[in-house]
Amino acid sequence: MKTLFIFFIFLTGLCQAQESPALTGEIIDLTYSFSEESVYWVTAKEFELEEVAKGKTEKGYYYSANNFSTAEHGGTHIDAPIHFAENAQSVEEIPLEKLVGAAVKIDVSDKALNNPDYLISIEDLKTWEKEQGQIPLNSIVLLQTGFGKYYPDKQKYLGTTNRGPEAVKELHFPGLAPEAARWLVEERKISSVGIDTPSIDYGQSQEFGAHVALMTNNVPAFENVANLDQLPATGFQVIALPMKIKGGSGGPLRIIAIK
Amino acid sequence: MKTLFIFFIFLTGLCQAQESPALTGEIIDLTYSFSEESVYWVTAKEFELEEVAKGKTEKGYYYSANNFSTAEHGGTHIDAPIHFAENAQSVEEIPLEKLVGAAVKIDVSDKALNNPDYLISIEDLKTWEKEQGQIPLNSIVLLQTGFGKYYPDKQKYLGTTNRGPEAVKELHFPGLAPEAARWLVEERKISSVGIDTPSIDYGQSQEFGAHVALMTNNVPAFENVANLDQLPATGFQVIALPMKIKGGSGGPLRIIAIK
Repeated sequence: MKTLFIFFIFLTGLCQAQESPALTGEIIDLTYSFSEESVYWVTAKEFELEEVAKGKTEKGYYYSANNFSTAEHGGTHIDAPIHFAENAQSVEEIPLEKLVGAAVKIDVSDKALNNPDYLISIEDLKTWEKEQGQIPLNSIVLLQTGFGKYYPDKQKYLGTTNRGPEAVKELHFPGLAPEAARWLVEERKISSVGIDTPSIDYGQSQEFGAHVALMTNNVPAFENVANLDQLPATGFQVIALPMKIKGGSGGPLRIIAIK
Repeated sequence: MKTLFIFFIFLTGLCQAQESPALTGEIIDLTYSFSEESVYWVTAKEFELEEVAKGKTEKGYYYSANNFSTAEHGGTHIDAPIHFAENAQSVEEIPLEKLVGAAVKIDVSDKALNNPDYLISIEDLKTWEKEQGQIPLNSIVLLQTGFGKYYPDKQKYLGTTNRGPEAVKELHFPGLAPEAARWLVEERKISSVGIDTPSIDYGQSQEFGAHVALMTNNVPAFENVANLDQLPATGFQVIALPMKIKGGSGGPLRIIAIK
């Protein structure tokens, strides 16, 4: 009895010890750096860095600083719901609870790497659930097409090196089928979704049905997410913190996983 | 005995339940939105948002998107070590372990709100430690001067509404004394430091000694941090994720606390 009591005290201590350093675990950066190599939509303004100062000042200390300009949507970024849904949340209005929390990774790269127009289907999501169990409510869902390995090679990653409105029809990369987006929103009440391609809709999309399905329900999307191959299917947390642009339709995103 | 065994099973379950959703707790956003109101250094290029699209497209779906331009250093942002130290880390090179973890808040607003040229001293840090215990190694240290309540009123927050090189001498806001910065780096091995003013050095600084002390040791600084009044002195985590600009001397920062 006394032994059991001591064991109980020990176990209570163990519980408390787990509670305190909440952010332990390996941190994985799921973000590409912004540079002149960053991949943007073929019609979007690309990232530009302008040097303002670099070197020793007359007072003796070293000083460097830059300005930059960019479209909201390029490199690793977030689509805020207002990007494709009138009166939906702009980027600074997205509740942080939708950007921070338990996540799952669904890997369809076996299929998508053989078909640059691949659409991730409800069937793909259900196949994953048969192996891993149901996607928990309020999950952050990351979709791995395998296309991340092509970044930033525009020919392989986007399907074209051309730019401008004429290049839109040359875009070829996988995406989430609109009905699968609706299923994730309605049946699994996901918090947010991310993908290792330039867009949650596939390159050949005309109507952007996955964007519309997600964003009319205030579900944001992360695009050009890096390093998904380093994540397990379950058992990790995601923290996705976008630049807080007032009224922004999206913006640069720093996204990490803790596993 | 049987009751105790059942209780033991229950307690084990409780431990596991705590382990899985590691990021529980209240999330507090320590970030100001970027807008035309954002506070910038008097010589820095301010934030500009340019509308690219907003409204229903000819295909029937709604679409909005913007471009923006800004200095790296403005609004809630990070100073990467290379900002004030040659060959130190640029923003994308800062290890995430320095930006994510246990934090403390040191409130000197009683003194600083009565003196816009206040310098946070080693004595202030030691006084805090007498009450709260030693600042743990590798902590993220947040300094509350109380000036956050003035943001974005430039007269009160910066000391001037003027802009340009001539306005630099009109800057009045509190900061960290260079010797206190050195003490935090050398004696407490801090990971990073944040403050609710426009700069880790006070407004009247000429030599930027706190920046130099921190950054020659690869310790980054967070500036214009919001909502520090909502944090306790200890017992919370900070996640500070900057825009990942290749070679950047700093950049927009989204910083949150979990308590």
